[in-house]
Amino acid sequence: MNQVIETILEHHSVRKFKDKLLEREQIETIVKSAQAASTSSFIQAYSIIGITDQQKKERLAEIAGNQPYVAENGHFFVFCADLHRHKIIGNIENANLNESIESTEKFMVALIDAALAAQNAAVAAESMGLGICYIGGIRNDLGAVKEVLKTPEYVVPLFGLAVGYPDQETDIKPRLPLEHVYMENQYEQNRNVFEDQLRDYNKTTSDYYRARTEGKREDTWTGQMAKMLGRKSRLYMREFVEKQNLNKK
Amino acid sequence: MNQVIETILEHHSVRKFKDKLLEREQIETIVKSAQAASTSSFIQAYSIIGITDQQKKERLAEIAGNQPYVAENGHFFVFCADLHRHKIIGNIENANLNESIESTEKFMVALIDAALAAQNAAVAAESMGLGICYIGGIRNDLGAVKEVLKTPEYVVPLFGLAVGYPDQETDIKPRLPLEHVYMENQYEQNRNVFEDQLRDYNKTTSDYYRARTEGKREDTWTGQMAKMLGRKSRLYMREFVEKQNLNKK
Repeated sequence: MNQVIETILEHHSVRKFKDKLLEREQIETIVKSAQAASTSSFIQAYSIIGITDQQKKERLAEIAGNQPYVAENGHFFVFCADLHRHKIIGNIENANLNESIESTEKFMVALIDAALAAQNAAVAAESMGLGICYIGGIRNDLGAVKEVLKTPEYVVPLFGLAVGYPDQETDIKPRLPLEHVYMENQYEQNRNVFEDQLRDYNKTTSDYYRARTEGKREDTWTGQMAKMLGRKSRLYMREFVEKQNLNKK
Repeated sequence: MNQVIETILEHHSVRKFKDKLLEREQIETIVKSAQAASTSSFIQAYSIIGITDQQKKERLAEIAGNQPYVAENGHFFVFCADLHRHKIIGNIENANLNESIESTEKFMVALIDAALAAQNAAVAAESMGLGICYIGGIRNDLGAVKEVLKTPEYVVPLFGLAVGYPDQETDIKPRLPLEHVYMENQYEQNRNVFEDQLRDYNKTTSDYYRARTEGKREDTWTGQMAKMLGRKSRLYMREFVEKQNLNKK
């Protein structure tokens, strides 16, 4: 196993960082790594906003549901789906690109582009001995995030990435069975096989939580998911995204 | 610079592969690497379908606009946004999760999850000396892809990933200026600065294409983008996605 795959397989989110900021050079290496990712038809439909203003970090931490590591870290990045520059390209090139830019297809392209870039950033940071945590919590209130970051229309902030020097040890969580996530030639057609795999995985996750909490936490993955998805959260999203003129048709 | 960042920065898409299949162990390492990526609230909302059936590969190549490297490679993966298993969890746990699962928010989560996993797969493959190319072209006709892969509702195939032993040398394309993609504390408010950066980048891309084609290709990035986005492609996407019961509200 090479160093790259080792870094990737050892990933675990870090939610407590030492009080030490990243150097400018580290930030630039992380951003360059993000930019090196593939991008659909070279569209580069994302932006990254780094937060150095402590007040803004604290406001974002609050929006994310009072997660302290959003404010306390080595650096905080916000990854945005961004077709604003393509809207401006329409002006520069005297072309009406709205129908394309406002489509669900291009919204998907921008999301995928931003996520590919972010994962390169995450892996690069981890390879430098830093810890990372994705912060989907900023989507609790994108209207408020938009105010903090002053993002124009055609931009949707997607998630934060907290990076810093780890100040805690965390475990690697066991993933779904490989054969459940990876199929060949067609999607699994046998419902019994599919459900058995989920039940097997429930055993794996129960054992994991039990071992980790000295028997205190009883939890299965399907139970966890039902609870999480039972909460109807962020149902304003479609309206917000459309208001930015994305995912409209 | 460590080996991980070197691998990431050296990325360039490969569109011609040697006639040699990946070993099972390589495929599993790539999938495990994909699964090690972060996932929103541990939702793991994606599936990966590997194609070993040559006829299916050829059909997908055709759908993708007759790209031969979709059929001729070491292995071909299709990454799907997948909330089908969460729909089934609703049955297992006797909970109605539809409102969550069918929301734009969860569609975004599934897309981001799938893309984070895919980028880990891409970087892992490249670290093994393999070449990769993302294939967004399968989105030309997801109805046809759905037939080939027999994906159920709540699943949207997003892109392919062709992997194999490189049989061509390709260049690393220059990305947008770092300061255009990476901002601090707020989005760039000065339109002139923003447009100047795009013009600077046009010079970079023109130089790149001219050098690469011995002066034959005259092209700017904004020109390329206007041309690409001027074609109204894949405008069926919103309807297709909604038909799978995703991105509905």
